[in-house]
Amino acid sequence: MRTNYKMIISYDGTAYSGFASQKNTDLTIQGKLEAVLSRMMDEEVEVIGAGRTDAGVHAKGMCVNVHLNGNPEPKEVMDYLNRYLPMDISVLEATRASERFHSRYNATGKTYCYTCYVGNAKPVFNRKYVYALEKMPDIKAMQEASKHLLGTHDFLSFCGNPKFKKDSVRTIDKVDIRHKGDYLTITVHGDGFLQNMVRIITGTLLEVGFGEKSPEDMPKIIEAKDREAAGFIAHAKGLCLMSVDYQ
Amino acid sequence: MRTNYKMIISYDGTAYSGFASQKNTDLTIQGKLEAVLSRMMDEEVEVIGAGRTDAGVHAKGMCVNVHLNGNPEPKEVMDYLNRYLPMDISVLEATRASERFHSRYNATGKTYCYTCYVGNAKPVFNRKYVYALEKMPDIKAMQEASKHLLGTHDFLSFCGNPKFKKDSVRTIDKVDIRHKGDYLTITVHGDGFLQNMVRIITGTLLEVGFGEKSPEDMPKIIEAKDREAAGFIAHAKGLCLMSVDYQ
Repeated sequence: MRTNYKMIISYDGTAYSGFASQKNTDLTIQGKLEAVLSRMMDEEVEVIGAGRTDAGVHAKGMCVNVHLNGNPEPKEVMDYLNRYLPMDISVLEATRASERFHSRYNATGKTYCYTCYVGNAKPVFNRKYVYALEKMPDIKAMQEASKHLLGTHDFLSFCGNPKFKKDSVRTIDKVDIRHKGDYLTITVHGDGFLQNMVRIITGTLLEVGFGEKSPEDMPKIIEAKDREAAGFIAHAKGLCLMSVDYQ
Repeated sequence: MRTNYKMIISYDGTAYSGFASQKNTDLTIQGKLEAVLSRMMDEEVEVIGAGRTDAGVHAKGMCVNVHLNGNPEPKEVMDYLNRYLPMDISVLEATRASERFHSRYNATGKTYCYTCYVGNAKPVFNRKYVYALEKMPDIKAMQEASKHLLGTHDFLSFCGNPKFKKDSVRTIDKVDIRHKGDYLTITVHGDGFLQNMVRIITGTLLEVGFGEKSPEDMPKIIEAKDREAAGFIAHAKGLCLMSVDYQ
């Protein structure tokens, strides 16, 4: 008997080469999860993530699933993981899922939040989780620009992978830009995101905020389907995967 | 002409051997501040702190003062420091102060906050700023015990320095113990604190919370004037100096 487990994972991505396993490093979130679970279950396990986060990107609500031999209690699995995983990876929830649940194929949406520090000093305690701006951008211009991102578009201009050949059409239904205290947050919700997409959206919106681009440039940028048309890629450390939706 | 500057400093103490300069290491907050200011002013400077924080203890509102040659603008001093200090030390405010202002001698009170994590998972993003408890302590018992600390007492039982020979009488006028979400905070305000005092108070209150001591033991513990009578010293990383009062 094999049982499928769904888990919500939180991690500080600072020290990692991203979520997904890679040949040349064991410093990945997936790699750490698999190593601990393999030891617990004494079997090879494959952890499936709802998506890949870039090196240095964080998560407060990554969803994964994993099939395990037998039928251990979810709490037992979660406690074992929290005990033996490094301090920068935490399992927030673990539940049994239907055999067919697949964290990536069944995901219907994701929410990412990008956080910039716009205060006068330096962000000491969360310096690894925010991108510090030298000056305050024009938030209204950014909000105006962000409206053009809403809807279903080919987002190839916002894809960091130059060799990407698959379908690059995605739907974004929320871009929420807020200034609160010393922080500026850009929260994006969509049905899925291309590689580096939220970071390139953030960089492009910041260029609008600093007057290097105008809100009216956005349709042209999208239509270009060319990475060169969009703005810079914002630093990974400001980005966090907040949650993954399932129907 | 020399000018006295008062500054509010925030730091992540994780990497440091404490606030105060030491012979064997340059990894102190005072040492870092003095090194950067000496380079800026091309003179030897002495930074005076409102108090010494232990190795690994943090601050959101440490107050320091420093006499500098000439009369540079406070903002200039602050910006220079924030540019050249490490990312884990930040100057929040800088103002000119009267020549006689002394951050330690003029301090009339201090507020410290000790933060414990009491959630079910692991505190990923603030793991360096909280002490994770295995289980939830009895907060009512802790609050009951804390009342005995209020007032003016000889706190020698709560002093981590066995060779301490000076006046160990201090006045505590607030111990606020709160449980909010995944966190338990112990906020203490007093006119001054002995070495390790807040951490030993926290350890003692936690022992009450876990039933190893009772609230009624507190008067005896204080009266003993003996470090052995009090509880364990709570981990430095949970402690933060929040603010320093001046009249």
